[in-house]
Formats: sequence, structure tokens, C-alpha cells
Amino acid sequence: MTYNLALYTIQQAYQRIKPYVRHTPMMPAPLMHTDVSSNLLLKLENMQLTGSFKLRGVINTLLSLTDEERQRGVVASSGGNHGLALAYAAQRLGIPATIYLPNTATADRVNRIRYFQAQVVQYGTVWDEAHTRALEHAAQDNLYYVHPFNAPRTLAGQGTLGLELLDDVPDVDCVLIAIGGGGLIGGMGAALKQLRPQLRIIGVEPTGAASMDASLKAGYVVELPSISTIADTLQPRAVGEMTFSLAQRYVDAVVLVEDHQMIEAMRWLWLECNQLVEPAGAAVIAALLNGNADIRTARRPVAVICGGNAAAGSVFTTYEAAL
Amino acid sequence: MTYNLALYTIQQAYQRIKPYVRHTPMMPAPLMHTDVSSNLLLKLENMQLTGSFKLRGVINTLLSLTDEERQRGVVASSGGNHGLALAYAAQRLGIPATIYLPNTATADRVNRIRYFQAQVVQYGTVWDEAHTRALEHAAQDNLYYVHPFNAPRTLAGQGTLGLELLDDVPDVDCVLIAIGGGGLIGGMGAALKQLRPQLRIIGVEPTGAASMDASLKAGYVVELPSISTIADTLQPRAVGEMTFSLAQRYVDAVVLVEDHQMIEAMRWLWLECNQLVEPAGAAVIAALLNGNADIRTARRPVAVICGGNAAAGSVFTTYEAAL
Repeated sequence: MTYNLALYTIQQAYQRIKPYVRHTPMMPAPLMHTDVSSNLLLKLENMQLTGSFKLRGVINTLLSLTDEERQRGVVASSGGNHGLALAYAAQRLGIPATIYLPNTATADRVNRIRYFQAQVVQYGTVWDEAHTRALEHAAQDNLYYVHPFNAPRTLAGQGTLGLELLDDVPDVDCVLIAIGGGGLIGGMGAALKQLRPQLRIIGVEPTGAASMDASLKAGYVVELPSISTIADTLQPRAVGEMTFSLAQRYVDAVVLVEDHQMIEAMRWLWLECNQLVEPAGAAVIAALLNGNADIRTARRPVAVICGGNAAAGSVFTTYEAAL
Repeated sequence: MTYNLALYTIQQAYQRIKPYVRHTPMMPAPLMHTDVSSNLLLKLENMQLTGSFKLRGVINTLLSLTDEERQRGVVASSGGNHGLALAYAAQRLGIPATIYLPNTATADRVNRIRYFQAQVVQYGTVWDEAHTRALEHAAQDNLYYVHPFNAPRTLAGQGTLGLELLDDVPDVDCVLIAIGGGGLIGGMGAALKQLRPQLRIIGVEPTGAASMDASLKAGYVVELPSISTIADTLQPRAVGEMTFSLAQRYVDAVVLVEDHQMIEAMRWLWLECNQLVEPAGAAVIAALLNGNADIRTARRPVAVICGGNAAAGSVFTTYEAAL
């Protein structure tokens, strides 16, 4: 299939969600070290409400529901960040929400979602299994299913980050974006390329869950037999038909990063920018540090730090132990 | 003594240091929870280069040295952040630097300072002892001593954060600022109050190192017999004569926070803003959460998150263990 995401749809979403999301900051130059291009700017979407870009798609979806759909409530499945965003947004808008997480989700993630009064169901060992179960639940009870990446409203919402980035840096000419299900790069790609056709978009995937890379090489959506990465928010076994179609059209290159390189990049972001982020949020930096993403020809490159929900609990317990 | 810090001096420093520091972002509204005023804005100076406001005073000082002073090199003493800022700035400007730290400084702090090629000497158990030894060294070898708070160039540099804040939020009417040696609140106070005499400045100190509070109550600089706080960057036994004089004139109230309240505030900053900061950086939030700082009458309150160098190493080792 070929899927089109019209610029106008993203522009409408941008206006719709503005009162509900943060306009996240750009990391201002200069940087401390010289491991990466000194022209590089970071879009700190890890500072979005609930700690990731996921809120954009979620809010856009919930604000587009009918009154009847809102009253019945919504269902979702998530590796973590989509669920957290949905729980927060649903509580804020007064919509009942049920969120399916794999059994492997950490207690911290489960608790943060429950904090917003969403009902949590843990099922399966990977996101794909929780997703299938959640779809059944939604169909049975006639509830709206909020897909984490492969849905027009979700994609339009994630695309707003592209418009916001152009507001911040009108002369941006190269953007690095991490790929999980492909919702962020699909939405941002549609926004950015329709307004700046010459702009270069580089996707970044973990080697252990390189479903978009495999699909682009095959020419169709490939389902990986298994996935293995510490980036628990970048790990569906297959991207979506819509996100694949958008990536085919708008993504110039996909580069891969190893897990240990993402951890190195987490350290870099901490030492360089005092930003603690999750592995997925550091993937774009890993691609620069390992040399796979080449931005030497770019005049105004931007790396999107897409999520910040690192497992930080040990920091607080260390300080508490010193009391 | 009465010490004056002229607005013009701070304005000159602001222009002088601009190419060398980050203009740090304001945390945009809305916040996720409702524990504090929804009008509150955060000035994220934890995102300054080297992770704290200290770079401002350091850069202003180093840029004001004569060529001869630069060639001979500089000496400093620090609980951590001042030393890190000095090491970075000295390397950047090509100035030899020796930094005294107490023996209690963590290996992580020592290593980060050594990374910038500064010579590190560990002496004494608290900052005051390292400070005395560093002063002797500077006098013996005729080297410039870069005081972490009680010096005109340091104070003018820290004052630039007040000017930057007014650029960001011209209608700010109440500012919360943590107090260690008093350099930040002294410099910012001088900048803010000379331009906005009606603005309210609230200082925040740990109960275990409340040297400014004790001094303001006594009417002179009080040296505390001992200090006890996990905020290792807020703990000189005495504030300075200059910072005390500025605080007498410009600080409207000092409120106290307990160590466990700073840790709670660290958690709040993490959950609310995805910002991991050190205890001192969270002190102003602790003062809001515990109710000691009252900003109900403020229309545009700003809390200065002054430092971010939390002990985050356990996060990375946790991820590495999962490889």
C-alpha cells in the first residue's frame, strides 16, 4: 500500500495539540567536547510531558474522538512510553483508559502508568503479544484502540515535532531520528520533506531490532523472527504498513547502532548536556559517535532526542542511603 | 563591610561571557502534576556547560586576567562544580589550573576535573580546609586564586544569570535561588533588584548548612561549627563578606530545607521534567513542596535549577549489566 500523510493534516494537529504539549527546547551550542560536529543541535523532546514524543500522537488522537468514543474509553498497548503518554492524556481529558504492557515491563513503568489512574494489564513477553491481546479487548468491548505508531492520527501527532523543529531551526538541513515502529520518523518525515524537499533524513535503529532497515531492503514490511535490544522502546518485531510507506518516501538512509553504543551515547548526553535519557533517546547520538551517520556535509544538522525515561531509580536510593 | 556590585559591571560581564556559555532554557509550562503553582517556570541552569552556573563566574574571571596572570596559571578550591567549571574553562582558554578538592570528593568528580587536564590536589575533609591550602599555594607561587563565591569577578559572572533570566521572562516577579556560599544569590540579587526593585528574592538553604540564614539573623558573617548535608555543593561553613552584604540588601527571605526533602524534590524534577539534578539543584523545589517558600502572591515566579551534577553512574552500570 501507499500511504499519504498530508501536510495540512499535520498542521491541523499542530494547532490542536499546542495547549496540551510542551514546546521542547533546543540544546544551545556550544558543546563541551568535539566528538561530534560542533554545528549539531539537539531537539530535547525527552523534556516533553511524560518524557517522550509519544504524547503528541496520543493527544492528537484523543482530541479527535467523538464524545461517544471518549465516554466508552480507549485501549492501548505499549513498551512503556506510549502507555505513559496515554495514561496521562486520558486522565487529563477525563477518558477511561486500559493499557496492555508485556510482562517484561519494569515495576517502575507500571507504577508510573497506574499513577494516572489508567488500568494496566500485563500480557505476553513482547509488545507484539500485548498488542494482539489489546486489539481483541478493544474489538470485544467496542473501544477505540490508540495504536502507538501505525495510525493516521498518531502519525499526524508525531509529525508536529517536525513542524516545531522548523519553527525552532528554519534552516535545518539534516535530521537524525530513531526508529521503533516508525511513527516518529514517518510523521516527522512527512512534515519536513513536504516543506523542505532537500532536507536529509537519517533513521537510526538498534542492530537487534532493525525491522525498518530489513523492510526497506526487502521492499515490503518484514517481520523479524526475534528482537534483542536494551532499547525497550525501539523494539516492535515489524514496522507498520503506513510507517513503512512513509519511510520509503521520506527517509534517505537508515543506520544501525549496537546496544553498548547506545549506553556510551547515554554517557555522552549526560556529560555533555546533563541530560539523562533512555537508550532509545541516545540512539541518534550513538550513530554519530560510531561514525555510521555522516553529517559532514550538513550545515545545520539536528538530532532528535526522542525519549528520556531512563531507569533512574538507583540514583535516588543511593542518595537516600546517605541520609 | 558594605559591598556594592554595580549593574554596569554585571552587564559588561554578560557581554564578555556570552560566547563561552550556554543560554540555558526555561522549562515551558504546563507541568504534569499540581504540587506547585502552575505558573512556576524553571530556569534550567543545570544544562549550563559543566552542569552548573559556576561556569559564569569562572569564565568572567579568566577573561579578565592579564596576559601575565594567564601564563602563570590559576588556583582554585571547590566542592565540585566550581572546580569542574574552572578546569573546563582553563583548558578552553589555555590557562594552567590547579584545583584543590576535599578528600571527600567522589572519584567521579575528581576524574571529570582531570579529564580537562587540570591538576587536582585533594586536601582536608571539607571545602574550607581545601580552600585554606589552595590560598597558601596561590600566595607562595604568585598565582591568581579564583574564589568560588566571594570575589567581585565571580559575583559579576553569576549575576549574568539574573540578566539572562530577565531576557527570558521580562515580567518575572519572584525568584527562588539556592544558597551555598551566596555567590549566585548575591550576583543575581544585584542584577535583578537594580533592574526590578519590586521583585522578590527567596533564598533556600539546607538546614544542615544554613550559614546565610544564621548570618542574616546575627547581622554579621557567622561561621558554623559544623555542617551536615547531602548537598555537597551547598556547604561552606561560612558565607563571604561580599555575598553576605549583597544578601542583606537584596534577599527578601531565606527558607530552609531538609536533606530528605531535597531528594523528594530530585524525584519530582525527574518525574515532572525529566531532569536529573543534584540535591543543591533541587533545593528550590524542595522549598516549594515543603511549603516553606510561599509564592502564592507571585504572578510570574521562577525557580533557578542551579546544578545538575547528580551521581548518575549507577544508571549506566545498570544498563551495562543487561548487555
